[in-house]
Amino acid sequence: MLRGLIQEVPLLISSLITHASRHHGDAEIVSRTVEGPAADGSGAIHRYTYRDAHKRARQLAQALARLGVKDGDRVGTLAWNGYRHFEAFYGISGMGAVMHTVNPRLFPEQLVYIINHAEDGYMLFDLTFAPLVEKLAPACKGVKGWIAMTDRAHMPKITLPNLLCYEELVAAENGNYEWPQLDEYTASSLCYTSGTTGNPKGVLYSHRSTVIHAFAAALPDALNISARDVMLPVVPMFHANAWSLPYGCAMVGAKLVFPGAALDGKSLYELFEAEKVTVSAGVPTVWLALLMYAGQEKKKFSTMNRTVIGGSACPPAMIKTFQEEYGVQVLHAWGMTEMSPLGTVSTLKAKHLKLSKEQKLAIQSKQGHNIFGADMKIVDGEGKDLPWDGKVFGDLLVRGPWITSSYFKGEGGDPLRLDEKGQGWFPTGDVATIDPDGYMQITDRSKDVIKTGGEWISTIDLENIAVGHPAVAEAAVIGCFHPKWDERPLLIVVKKPGAELTREELLKFYEGKVAKWWMPDDCVFVDQLPHTATGKLLKTKLREDFKGHKLPTA
Amino acid sequence: MLRGLIQEVPLLISSLITHASRHHGDAEIVSRTVEGPAADGSGAIHRYTYRDAHKRARQLAQALARLGVKDGDRVGTLAWNGYRHFEAFYGISGMGAVMHTVNPRLFPEQLVYIINHAEDGYMLFDLTFAPLVEKLAPACKGVKGWIAMTDRAHMPKITLPNLLCYEELVAAENGNYEWPQLDEYTASSLCYTSGTTGNPKGVLYSHRSTVIHAFAAALPDALNISARDVMLPVVPMFHANAWSLPYGCAMVGAKLVFPGAALDGKSLYELFEAEKVTVSAGVPTVWLALLMYAGQEKKKFSTMNRTVIGGSACPPAMIKTFQEEYGVQVLHAWGMTEMSPLGTVSTLKAKHLKLSKEQKLAIQSKQGHNIFGADMKIVDGEGKDLPWDGKVFGDLLVRGPWITSSYFKGEGGDPLRLDEKGQGWFPTGDVATIDPDGYMQITDRSKDVIKTGGEWISTIDLENIAVGHPAVAEAAVIGCFHPKWDERPLLIVVKKPGAELTREELLKFYEGKVAKWWMPDDCVFVDQLPHTATGKLLKTKLREDFKGHKLPTA
Repeated sequence: MLRGLIQEVPLLISSLITHASRHHGDAEIVSRTVEGPAADGSGAIHRYTYRDAHKRARQLAQALARLGVKDGDRVGTLAWNGYRHFEAFYGISGMGAVMHTVNPRLFPEQLVYIINHAEDGYMLFDLTFAPLVEKLAPACKGVKGWIAMTDRAHMPKITLPNLLCYEELVAAENGNYEWPQLDEYTASSLCYTSGTTGNPKGVLYSHRSTVIHAFAAALPDALNISARDVMLPVVPMFHANAWSLPYGCAMVGAKLVFPGAALDGKSLYELFEAEKVTVSAGVPTVWLALLMYAGQEKKKFSTMNRTVIGGSACPPAMIKTFQEEYGVQVLHAWGMTEMSPLGTVSTLKAKHLKLSKEQKLAIQSKQGHNIFGADMKIVDGEGKDLPWDGKVFGDLLVRGPWITSSYFKGEGGDPLRLDEKGQGWFPTGDVATIDPDGYMQITDRSKDVIKTGGEWISTIDLENIAVGHPAVAEAAVIGCFHPKWDERPLLIVVKKPGAELTREELLKFYEGKVAKWWMPDDCVFVDQLPHTATGKLLKTKLREDFKGHKLPTA
Repeated sequence: MLRGLIQEVPLLISSLITHASRHHGDAEIVSRTVEGPAADGSGAIHRYTYRDAHKRARQLAQALARLGVKDGDRVGTLAWNGYRHFEAFYGISGMGAVMHTVNPRLFPEQLVYIINHAEDGYMLFDLTFAPLVEKLAPACKGVKGWIAMTDRAHMPKITLPNLLCYEELVAAENGNYEWPQLDEYTASSLCYTSGTTGNPKGVLYSHRSTVIHAFAAALPDALNISARDVMLPVVPMFHANAWSLPYGCAMVGAKLVFPGAALDGKSLYELFEAEKVTVSAGVPTVWLALLMYAGQEKKKFSTMNRTVIGGSACPPAMIKTFQEEYGVQVLHAWGMTEMSPLGTVSTLKAKHLKLSKEQKLAIQSKQGHNIFGADMKIVDGEGKDLPWDGKVFGDLLVRGPWITSSYFKGEGGDPLRLDEKGQGWFPTGDVATIDPDGYMQITDRSKDVIKTGGEWISTIDLENIAVGHPAVAEAAVIGCFHPKWDERPLLIVVKKPGAELTREELLKFYEGKVAKWWMPDDCVFVDQLPHTATGKLLKTKLREDFKGHKLPTA
């Protein structure tokens, strides 16, 4: 092999903060503190620069090294979006250890499993989670120290034998530290997926995957981040690398604004305005709350010009409201923890610019087209490629330099599917269509799709129709055993309080909205539907509960 | 080392065209043909899509393989910007061979040296260069075949024993070809720098460096390319990867418009308008011609909103004219062949948005701040870091994953300078300042800077002042021996035809414009100044010619 004669500089996470510090040294990082304001009102907002953050990240790396943290050791965090968490992103990964963001919203038994499975040697936590930590600590014997992310004055009143103070650890170091020149394939960070079945599975990112993903995330067709932006990540830093924002913003020198624990509409709105935020990112639920606040208080956004919406499908009405009422462009994005997380963003192509508002909205409502680096395809049950016609749907597979090859410690099975060339593709667990322009739209989860007489029915489509009925609060559709068709759709519905609705009325509501063979065979009313800790519909539970349900058509 | 569990997908040039074909398959590539229109007017413009280009690039790869081209073999091009050249970029590199773009504007003896040094096994050439090829061929014995980039009907009437027809070669193949999954460090492309001294030196890029550089080039703070853009690269494809545009545009699915050989103002303007070009890129000379045409004909740009200007420093007046008279934003960029080529782009930061037009123009007139991946610093004669205050100037060094480590075959010496950490930095040969915001401004070439009594004087600054005098057509400043100060500035001037100007008047013109000790010690008038084939001032020749010059101050 003839090798190119180019400097073999590794792609490292430490290079991102070094770059930000050198070339955008005075760009700000502003945080709403978890400690909140002091009696005199000070301390509610913390403000410093990339240059300061770079020094503190190196102090943190020194402190962790002094505690005995070595290459490849895992260090966990239970924390909101704030400057100390940002320092942890760089200090831990930068020194060669693995930064493990833990989602504090999971059930305590899941947290214990995750912390022990990851073998976190130290855990950093925000004050909010002190009571949680007190509960977890006895079951997490491998954790040598619990580091409260605060100063001595604010230390929580909990009794833990191995409680440490973040600010004291950092203050003891001088920051004269050179980031090690690691192999770029070195593990940098770890994040567990909380599926609806089985134990959480660990996704282990590398320095290389993180930096390449940050490049892709910052592109004009993705999140489009520049040194002229002020980014407020609402998406928690414990969700899949906060969608790369702590990395992508350092890469381009964008100002960062961290909201801390205050994620209600009012707090967010005030921070957007006070810090002149130009772009944000989060899940639909958060934006719903923000839009409700803005609507009630008749507020407009004076600087925000776009927002990234992902995590779950963004309702078209939300896109419309943001764009038409608030002048805020919506970047509808899709990805998953196993994808670092970005896969697609629904930005328009040149050919779409002359379309009507409604036509553009229809495109933006899809999950979007691939960013270079995350290739995708849809396949049938036998793994054969399906056409990109925007109608046929199949299992969605992805492949690229920031996509999982296997789970931490191999626990979670060998997920990849090999194609005819021997290349591994990751099955997303989603069922989707792809249109001729490459725009992907998720129609269902693979395990939820109803397989009836060899054909597939999307449960999400059927649920969306039910929720469109004025008397329906929430709806779920599952496949129910049918002796002739294998499975047929069963609709399970929670009515709005006080609403009147019969089974027959609701089934009739589907007429003309879907093909005849898609119509649910039955409808059942319940008081509530089961959910996971992160708010997803728990269809496994429903399938269990309705295992013996006899369809009238059977 | 704990390795991340992420798919180890190599960064390959073939992945770019595969992506464009799959996800932006119908985005267009439009070329003004070198053959020109037929008698019936057809054939002046060639139009196809990324999907078509992908197929033809694979056919070309098959054709070259059939000719015996193997991994690492060099295949040269002497060609304008057009679709066949684009196919060569992907077909040659994609198959594992090395795509060697040769600059047809060099002197024939340089071309012979370069083609023989590179050991090009095949040469692709545009019709324009048929007479040149006929001249070169006898001296380039290693070239097994000269491939005319045209169809049989347009084959040039030259007598070469090994003349081949591009379209015939391509037509003989079916395009059913899988791109090899190469090691990403594999050499992909080769480009020679034509310095002012010594033999041209070969810069050997890799697949990895090219793809990472394309990511960086497409970023919002760099060239900001998206799927909504129509890019017309005026910069020739034989100049340092055409500034990455053939790669970056495929990465994001931007429409490409290739101007062929017609680079005059009128032809470019008409193509801009006809194809709704939104962004372009080229050297100041080309833009001067375009602006003259637009000015004379009172034309405006109806779709172009920005243009990249690099290759040599862009005069502030040109930035002002583009922005204020034509509403076209200027992206002033700097780089070099050894840098793939991008290093800095002078885009504004958030803090600059509130500045006045004049203040913004002053920032844009600098070469700009680093894109992530191309770090830089300035050092003194001993290699010590100099401050970033926008005043002190020193040798500019760069480092990063798309920057040269050494020249092809090791010929050109070991260019890197090691820092105290043992990391290699490439000396650009430029002398520059860097301001506190990281904006770099080139003040001179290292070998041209005048070292007087331990201090440095920028010859470019002194030349710019002379050219500002209404009677001066062109000026050069060189260091001239001085017994006390080692060197002092000597000004060498070509007067405008018919202009009257004395030595004393011109020296007096410097008063108040520079520090006293910067003032030239002498001034000499000449009829013309020596230049290289690419139009650069040949100061080595001047230093030779004025070696014995006795300064009046000596």
